Amino acid sequence: MSSDPLVIFTPSGKRGNFPVGTPVLTAARQLGVDLDSVCGGRGICSKCQVTPSVGEFPKHGVTVSEDALSEWNAVEERYKSKRGLIDGRRLGCQATVQGDVVIDVPPESQVHKQVVRKRAEARDITMNPSTRLYYVEVEEPDMHKPSGDLQRLYEALKNQWDVDVQRVEMNILQDVQKVLRQGQWKVTVAVHLGDHLRRPKIMHVWPGFYEGTIYGLAVDLGSTTIAAHLCDLKSGEVIASSGLMNPQIRFGEDLMSRVSYSMMNEGGDLEMTRAVREGMNALFVQLAAEAGVDKALIVDAVFVCNPVMHHLFLGIDPFELGQAPFALATNESISLSAHELDLNIHPSARIYLLPCIAGHVGADAAAVALSEAPDKSEELVLVVDVGTNAEILLGNTDKVLACSSPTGPAFEGAQISSGQRAAPGAIEKVEINPETKEPRFRVIGSEIWSDEDGFSEAIATTGITGICGSGIIEVIAEMRIAGILDASGLIGSAEQTGSARCIADGRTNAYLLWDGSADGGPTITVTNPDIRAIQMAKAALYSGARLLMDKFGVDTVDRVTLAGAFGAHISAKHAMVLGMIPDCTIDKVTSAGNAAGTGARIALLNTDARREIEETVRKIEKIETAVEPRFQEHFVNASAIPNSVEPFPILESIVDLPAVSFNTGGDKEAAGGRRRRRRG
Amino acid sequence: MSSDPLVIFTPSGKRGNFPVGTPVLTAARQLGVDLDSVCGGRGICSKCQVTPSVGEFPKHGVTVSEDALSEWNAVEERYKSKRGLIDGRRLGCQATVQGDVVIDVPPESQVHKQVVRKRAEARDITMNPSTRLYYVEVEEPDMHKPSGDLQRLYEALKNQWDVDVQRVEMNILQDVQKVLRQGQWKVTVAVHLGDHLRRPKIMHVWPGFYEGTIYGLAVDLGSTTIAAHLCDLKSGEVIASSGLMNPQIRFGEDLMSRVSYSMMNEGGDLEMTRAVREGMNALFVQLAAEAGVDKALIVDAVFVCNPVMHHLFLGIDPFELGQAPFALATNESISLSAHELDLNIHPSARIYLLPCIAGHVGADAAAVALSEAPDKSEELVLVVDVGTNAEILLGNTDKVLACSSPTGPAFEGAQISSGQRAAPGAIEKVEINPETKEPRFRVIGSEIWSDEDGFSEAIATTGITGICGSGIIEVIAEMRIAGILDASGLIGSAEQTGSARCIADGRTNAYLLWDGSADGGPTITVTNPDIRAIQMAKAALYSGARLLMDKFGVDTVDRVTLAGAFGAHISAKHAMVLGMIPDCTIDKVTSAGNAAGTGARIALLNTDARREIEETVRKIEKIETAVEPRFQEHFVNASAIPNSVEPFPILESIVDLPAVSFNTGGDKEAAGGRRRRRRG
Repeated sequence: MSSDPLVIFTPSGKRGNFPVGTPVLTAARQLGVDLDSVCGGRGICSKCQVTPSVGEFPKHGVTVSEDALSEWNAVEERYKSKRGLIDGRRLGCQATVQGDVVIDVPPESQVHKQVVRKRAEARDITMNPSTRLYYVEVEEPDMHKPSGDLQRLYEALKNQWDVDVQRVEMNILQDVQKVLRQGQWKVTVAVHLGDHLRRPKIMHVWPGFYEGTIYGLAVDLGSTTIAAHLCDLKSGEVIASSGLMNPQIRFGEDLMSRVSYSMMNEGGDLEMTRAVREGMNALFVQLAAEAGVDKALIVDAVFVCNPVMHHLFLGIDPFELGQAPFALATNESISLSAHELDLNIHPSARIYLLPCIAGHVGADAAAVALSEAPDKSEELVLVVDVGTNAEILLGNTDKVLACSSPTGPAFEGAQISSGQRAAPGAIEKVEINPETKEPRFRVIGSEIWSDEDGFSEAIATTGITGICGSGIIEVIAEMRIAGILDASGLIGSAEQTGSARCIADGRTNAYLLWDGSADGGPTITVTNPDIRAIQMAKAALYSGARLLMDKFGVDTVDRVTLAGAFGAHISAKHAMVLGMIPDCTIDKVTSAGNAAGTGARIALLNTDARREIEETVRKIEKIETAVEPRFQEHFVNASAIPNSVEPFPILESIVDLPAVSFNTGGDKEAAGGRRRRRRG
Repeated sequence: MSSDPLVIFTPSGKRGNFPVGTPVLTAARQLGVDLDSVCGGRGICSKCQVTPSVGEFPKHGVTVSEDALSEWNAVEERYKSKRGLIDGRRLGCQATVQGDVVIDVPPESQVHKQVVRKRAEARDITMNPSTRLYYVEVEEPDMHKPSGDLQRLYEALKNQWDVDVQRVEMNILQDVQKVLRQGQWKVTVAVHLGDHLRRPKIMHVWPGFYEGTIYGLAVDLGSTTIAAHLCDLKSGEVIASSGLMNPQIRFGEDLMSRVSYSMMNEGGDLEMTRAVREGMNALFVQLAAEAGVDKALIVDAVFVCNPVMHHLFLGIDPFELGQAPFALATNESISLSAHELDLNIHPSARIYLLPCIAGHVGADAAAVALSEAPDKSEELVLVVDVGTNAEILLGNTDKVLACSSPTGPAFEGAQISSGQRAAPGAIEKVEINPETKEPRFRVIGSEIWSDEDGFSEAIATTGITGICGSGIIEVIAEMRIAGILDASGLIGSAEQTGSARCIADGRTNAYLLWDGSADGGPTITVTNPDIRAIQMAKAALYSGARLLMDKFGVDTVDRVTLAGAFGAHISAKHAMVLGMIPDCTIDKVTSAGNAAGTGARIALLNTDARREIEETVRKIEKIETAVEPRFQEHFVNASAIPNSVEPFPILESIVDLPAVSFNTGGDKEAAGGRRRRRRG
């Protein structure tokens, strides 16, 4: 036994002794090493490439000689000359063991390879797609043993791959005889491996060995935008990404106006269902064209969205989501076929929708939970997905709480006098000199600050058109730091602040950020109503977070993760000055980008993650802010900048917020009244 | 314990002691007595009706007093006054045990009642339908415990009925919120209970208590006729039966011409698929109208058909079935949804196709096997389904063999000079006086023989139009008995037979059965080509049966069952004179009627029967006649009437077949040549 050569695989470290002549693929399989193969060792697919190492390996206690593997055989030679093979690589199914050997399995030869995510706090994605390709040789029909062609295909999958399929879609059943004969009883089969509710199912059959790959879609269906990634289900790579406006926007900008539309218009929900599905199909055409991929090769798709989008996409009237108790039709994940949703990809492509967490906390929040995994964090992490509705998660390995809070569209630049969507020309970064109260800023499309040389040239094409969401956060926070704005949210007058930029605006004041009137451009000011709008939005966000902290029994969190496109551009310091998020060490406030989209991609590439997030969602404690008495109290406190009662010690250690007050007369009284109520 | 009253249920005989006050339904459930309930004991559905018996029951050892059950309560009184209740009946959920009692559960209160079949040798059908109704009360939504309406419906089914549903069709998901609120959180649910491949699934939801029933279809899809039974899935009763011509007939009368059509015409298979599905839908409209039933209440349907019909119905090109090795696309049962086959019944109605046995032996033969159950017969039984193709089963509890044999359409009156389909005016029964050689006969539509008074009046409206399949069998057999026909199949001349009815017909003779020329009607003769056509057909049938007997290692069978509409009208004696079927005691030759249709009905009403026949079909030994060398030999022998080599001792004991021979010259030599080859 010990005379058999020792085979050691890296990176797994799995090892065993095998008789001389054992193919490397066979050794890998017997040891349970993750080495891919589509053709089952027939030297066709080249998926089982390995790199043998030669020399001394004290760590493993072996010396590998040059002839540790067999010489190149005809199959390998032919493969190399026809398709090419990276230097040092061998085909695992052809090379056989001749002596002690150390064999590296490169990532692209692993089935369960890791798709690396760039952020430090994010975990990599383990590849485990729903659908895999198998090459099989099927027994020919025999009059003496009458069995269906399909059953012999099932048998081949069972015998050659240990894949137990008993179901097909009708279109496969209709084609299988022709394809088997075309391929001369050799075919490549795409098998959906099933889940806890469904058995494995044949998705597609190609004659002979199919050289290509199959694809999946990860779709983030937002109220405003539909964004999708087209992924290679073999490599996990994103092949193309694209987005388009949700065509439902013509029925209402925000969710509640869409719910109203369906309530006011007979069949309005169906119109919106049709619209979003059509938009989706347009997006898929676009993606497939961009990637040069046949749409029919898209065999799996994962969708994340908020509850209203979820219901409208599925053709469920969202009526109940518009009123208490906000009952979902279903809060479980959904699995169905593409044709059931009129999606023009592979007709039997499997569609998976992540579960909704509650009537106000959707599958998008579930996807954020999957991507950011608060349930796997030792630190207590607050995850905030900022949009017109903020979804908020708070948790650690002990438990996870979730709620949503109606922030409104102010963070997206709506309801702001000079507000606009994030687009070239929009002011996105602002600094105000606390001494001079003079501002400087940058606009989207240029890296040059407004007080630097070359600014006017840099913005010549875009102009300065307004302030986007992250810009409005910054300018208000900077105004507060510069003493132009007091804690109650009032802008001081020129007299009170000593800045001519503070100009009277009806009964309140406004801060002049940019006067473009000389060039016929806009005059950009921050008005007191703008401040109010942001106060309302940030108070909603903070009080949701604070409510979860109450429920968790904590006053501070260890980390804050800002998800969503907006979150990616917010400055942590400025957000904290506004009191949008709880007091926290600045470098513990990070952005997760489109975490919902990433969650969709994880669920697409790793089916285990679907079961995982379903389980997590079941365990998440859902808090309904609308019926929590303390929510109102937190909201009132959080209306102040940063907060009228809660301390922000970390913030205070890095920023000095002037104790100015621009209240006069009635306003002051009103503020006092609020405070009294809160304490009463 | 022994002081608790004793409750004895009949007919099960199950008994137990229960505390005073126990509802009868509760007692029944605890004892596992089959007592139905849809409303779960709420006094709404009345399915749990029972009949208490009063008096002495020495057999059970109890005396039941008048007050053994509780007095009528308000619910029972109200039910009786509103809906009526058969005298002596009580509602099992309302009546409570007060003393020792004997309680009869009438058949209509049993879930697994027996649907009685009339034939002595046929087993009754045990009711166990795929889909059942459940009345549930669903928890209302609660903001503090956000869960989907659907999940609360699932929970209600689980808690109140122990039915574990996790799947719905999209249309249910789209409607469930509305229906739950309409029913004020009380709904009736139709649940498909699933099978080995599929989990239980909600098919339909009605607000409140649904008073009605649900339906299923048993469809026998023949090459010529589509016949369907509409069944009540609760009672098992056939509510309506109807049939129509298979619209595919316009593409070819017989199977092979349809296969050719699809080979010769691009898309021809799809045309035929469309045609048969359209025909099916027309038939369903007709059935539903006849029964006054909403088609959307048809939630289950079982189809049986031969392999070519099976493939064309499913949209599979039957090309492979037209040539060796006759490979089926699939030989397993098929489960799918109505909409996948464009059938206009309940959109998610479950469709079940029985498995095909082999490329020539279809799901119809499987259905015959289910109905006639040769695998459960102690006696060796030969089951023959006679059509243009004869499907033949031979077996007993040891094993079952199957084959098909191409009999052609002669048995259906085609290829016969005076042949016609069985319809009023067709001669169906014939007797020939062996002395006078004079015939008498009966036609379909009249019970009067042609030599009896009133015959002309009886047939005045129909006339005498031709000979149907059973008539041709009888007349040829009678000709053989009367010595007009010899064993080789030659009709004697007037001179040879001494009968003026034997008239010269080219180089051979014909027998004049009826001369209607005086009245302008047809002259009906049996010609020698007619005899040849029947010889070919019956030889094919017999040699198939004989081949199975060879394989079984027997020379005789205990029973013969003739299935199919044709089989229902064949006289056993005449069939045996012709040598269509093996020699057998006459009263052991019985007709099973449309056994394939009955098999479909069994599979519809009892889902266990589906697993059972799948298992049986897997075990059936399939014999392909085309490649069996002995088939030809048997065929040649069986061309003689009854057979040139095999003895028919039982037949000989009751019928004397004259040893006539009308061969002359060349014909004789040919016959001798055949005989020599056979023995060589």
